[in-house]
Amino acid sequence: MSSLAMVQCSRRSLPVAAALIGRFRFQCQQRWCSGPAKVRGKYARVTDADVHHFRSLLGESNVLTGRQNVGPYNVDYLKHVSGESGLVLKPKTTKDVSEILKYCNGRNIAVCPQAGNTGMSGGSVAMFDEVVLSTQRMNSIINFDPVSGVLVCQAGCVLESLMNHVESHGYMMPLDLGSKGSCQIGGNVSTNAGGIRVIRYGTLQGCVLGLEAVTADGTILDCVNTMRKDNTGYHLKHLFIGSEGTLGVITKVAILCPRLPKHVNIAFIGLDSYDKVLQLFSIARAEFGETLSSFELMDNVTVTCVEKNLQLQCPIANTYQFYVLIELASSRPNVGQHMENVLEKALDDSVIADATTSDQTSNINKIWKIRESGIDALLKLGYVYTFDLSIPLKQFYEIVELTREKLKDVADCKIVSGFGHIGDSNLHLNIVTSRCDEELTQLIEPFVYGWTSKCGGSVSAEHGIGSAKTHYLKYTKSVQAIDLMRRLKNTMDPKCILNPYKVIPTATADVAVRGDQ
Amino acid sequence: MSSLAMVQCSRRSLPVAAALIGRFRFQCQQRWCSGPAKVRGKYARVTDADVHHFRSLLGESNVLTGRQNVGPYNVDYLKHVSGESGLVLKPKTTKDVSEILKYCNGRNIAVCPQAGNTGMSGGSVAMFDEVVLSTQRMNSIINFDPVSGVLVCQAGCVLESLMNHVESHGYMMPLDLGSKGSCQIGGNVSTNAGGIRVIRYGTLQGCVLGLEAVTADGTILDCVNTMRKDNTGYHLKHLFIGSEGTLGVITKVAILCPRLPKHVNIAFIGLDSYDKVLQLFSIARAEFGETLSSFELMDNVTVTCVEKNLQLQCPIANTYQFYVLIELASSRPNVGQHMENVLEKALDDSVIADATTSDQTSNINKIWKIRESGIDALLKLGYVYTFDLSIPLKQFYEIVELTREKLKDVADCKIVSGFGHIGDSNLHLNIVTSRCDEELTQLIEPFVYGWTSKCGGSVSAEHGIGSAKTHYLKYTKSVQAIDLMRRLKNTMDPKCILNPYKVIPTATADVAVRGDQ
Repeated sequence: MSSLAMVQCSRRSLPVAAALIGRFRFQCQQRWCSGPAKVRGKYARVTDADVHHFRSLLGESNVLTGRQNVGPYNVDYLKHVSGESGLVLKPKTTKDVSEILKYCNGRNIAVCPQAGNTGMSGGSVAMFDEVVLSTQRMNSIINFDPVSGVLVCQAGCVLESLMNHVESHGYMMPLDLGSKGSCQIGGNVSTNAGGIRVIRYGTLQGCVLGLEAVTADGTILDCVNTMRKDNTGYHLKHLFIGSEGTLGVITKVAILCPRLPKHVNIAFIGLDSYDKVLQLFSIARAEFGETLSSFELMDNVTVTCVEKNLQLQCPIANTYQFYVLIELASSRPNVGQHMENVLEKALDDSVIADATTSDQTSNINKIWKIRESGIDALLKLGYVYTFDLSIPLKQFYEIVELTREKLKDVADCKIVSGFGHIGDSNLHLNIVTSRCDEELTQLIEPFVYGWTSKCGGSVSAEHGIGSAKTHYLKYTKSVQAIDLMRRLKNTMDPKCILNPYKVIPTATADVAVRGDQ
Repeated sequence: MSSLAMVQCSRRSLPVAAALIGRFRFQCQQRWCSGPAKVRGKYARVTDADVHHFRSLLGESNVLTGRQNVGPYNVDYLKHVSGESGLVLKPKTTKDVSEILKYCNGRNIAVCPQAGNTGMSGGSVAMFDEVVLSTQRMNSIINFDPVSGVLVCQAGCVLESLMNHVESHGYMMPLDLGSKGSCQIGGNVSTNAGGIRVIRYGTLQGCVLGLEAVTADGTILDCVNTMRKDNTGYHLKHLFIGSEGTLGVITKVAILCPRLPKHVNIAFIGLDSYDKVLQLFSIARAEFGETLSSFELMDNVTVTCVEKNLQLQCPIANTYQFYVLIELASSRPNVGQHMENVLEKALDDSVIADATTSDQTSNINKIWKIRESGIDALLKLGYVYTFDLSIPLKQFYEIVELTREKLKDVADCKIVSGFGHIGDSNLHLNIVTSRCDEELTQLIEPFVYGWTSKCGGSVSAEHGIGSAKTHYLKYTKSVQAIDLMRRLKNTMDPKCILNPYKVIPTATADVAVRGDQ
């Protein structure tokens, strides 16, 4: 096939990807390849006969070849990494997925599962010439039970379409993400996606009741439990939640949806110090209890940047060191008044310096827009080294200040900012630079990850490991844990055809650091 | 050792256990052994040299031998099964556990981990002569962080002592069980224990942030994450949550505690039909939203039995077909008034027939006592075949009626009753009989489990599989799922020394039924 002949198995340089897709400013590729260089595994290369087989299985239009057709599937959401896949397969059913994997496993062809391709760690794009298995067409809602609130659907359903579906029954999805318009539920579950309401509804580990997955050899594993409780042996679903497609391809999901709250109130608050942010968080937990849906933080640097670069207006004066967004959601109408009473007292007690509240959807959306635009605003200024850290609350903002101090004399480092989900101890630390190279990377990353490891945090709170952070896994996972991960992978995918090069570090040197921290 | 010479490796008959421990009425042993008879594995037998080794490791007083000392560890909570262990080890530290398992794995000695020994499926008692590893002495609270609400403790901490500890900081444990006075958190996590507040706080799969476990070869796996979010590779903790000690011994737990609610209100409600129970549940979910902590059901048979046999008084007239207990817990004071308004409207609309409410702790406890005494009241009448099923709400009570119909002409079946957690779709179906033998078992169990399987339910909602239900696992788990469980077990415990004979069925015939249902 001439289309396949175009595929080269070396990594494509990013400028090519930029020319092909270019929409955002790019970070340099080196950041994503720090650590030992990846080497293509000894997989079979796709032949014309393979393509012919897949066309007879899925139909002509569901087998894409040729650079132009395959191109969009080869670049990730952030445009940080690009792959060299020459073949995209679009199954419709679980049986299709099973047939594809059985064939690929038999032929020793590597496969990269891809849902909405909105991941932040490069997990859903081929590293070399893996076949892309796209769940795009697996978008059927199978059932929604309005008594129990349990939704069962195929993995390729877009999150926003599920939100709309369950909202029409008076329910909501337990997760909400900026990428809801294109991310798919199978990808959300595969990456254990977090988002802005984990404080209230927990992680997907608690919300996903069951799932169906296809393992590397094509075995269909039906664990589509729809019951809230099921203690019949090992909880196999958890092997697939958060393992980023390396142990199996999720094909169906059963998820427990909470009731849509009748009343939503929001507050945007200015504070003078991080200590006061913590005081306010304690007050909010105690006073708002079960109605607290979000408690988000932005520092002054972030808010200033959002105002200047995106022309969004902060709803209170931009003169405070920190800003907090609180969202309450309740079945009862008096929650807004209670919020105002609590904030007035906090103002009298000098815990907070200023605040505005609203229960109007348009205002709520405007305020959320400020919180969600941090990264876009920073990207206007240059390259962004962005981190997704879990850090104990007492030390949460310290790493922002320490990084600022460490980089204060480095001319190419323009801005250090912090924002994130205080309610989940999840900080997004960002460093804007005018260049992006190995020297800067080595100055920044070991420092940030080393500090995170020392204070018992996580180097990936919600974005996962993907291809971007395999080298840094050792800062959070112990040698023994990484060894067990590797043994599980070998048991479930002995030929390692599923999403190779991702999640698990390949080099021995990569697994022996945490103990030294 | 003369003490060890007393140990026989055949199953001890129950009358001996009864004479030894006798406190409750016993079910016959056959119920727990339906399916192929278990055969002792080819494990080494414990020698004097082994005992000497353990005494030098743990100290004389922490190594129990002799029938009298070991006896209490050989009979389960319900007095349904008894083991033949001749040796109980009481480690204090993770390192002790590691040394014990490393030694036993090397010597090919089988080990039965035991926490509070309050399980309902016989998972914590030896089947033959396994060494009992008791976590009784591992009872240190390591840390409680009053800002994040995260508790870190050793596995042997008694649940009630943890409740008291976190309550003093304004928090509560996310689970509550009848056996809280003796069950241990490590056992709770190993069995993924449910309880009465799953509807509000979810299962332990969502609340446990991290844990430490020791695998069969003595490897210490430190996954004591205390962060709410941690997406660094496979979520290994879930291998140990609910696997009943067959993949590792949990030694430490990190658990997220919710704030203690300021206001608790309870209602006890009479209803005329199961359809009305479902109507009330829909109303309760919509009206009480995030404040709904429990929604429990009892049928008239259960309540009558509790009144007659335990002299507890039902707080409303005992003339209704069904009784519902609703508990609301909130940070806001007006929740009680709201409950009364909602129930008054439900009364006007003839959804409910009668109700009483209270916010007084003594009344709340009295009402809970009625709900929690169902099984004790039934046991006064004879043998009890008790089932722990997850069933879709529409069909929830149907199996009680079907079973009643099926057994109406069987003289030895006295009573069929149902109660349970409507909020979690978790039914406890109970059949009181005057005898307990293979004939009755074969009449009842395949019928109940077959029906449960057909309607997509679970044969074990919260009690686990243990030794009692390995034969019935196939009614919920597919052949492929059981095969994967077996492969995981082989990977993590190749000599199968950890809690053998439990959870995973040994006979091939036991794994091929679900597809036929």
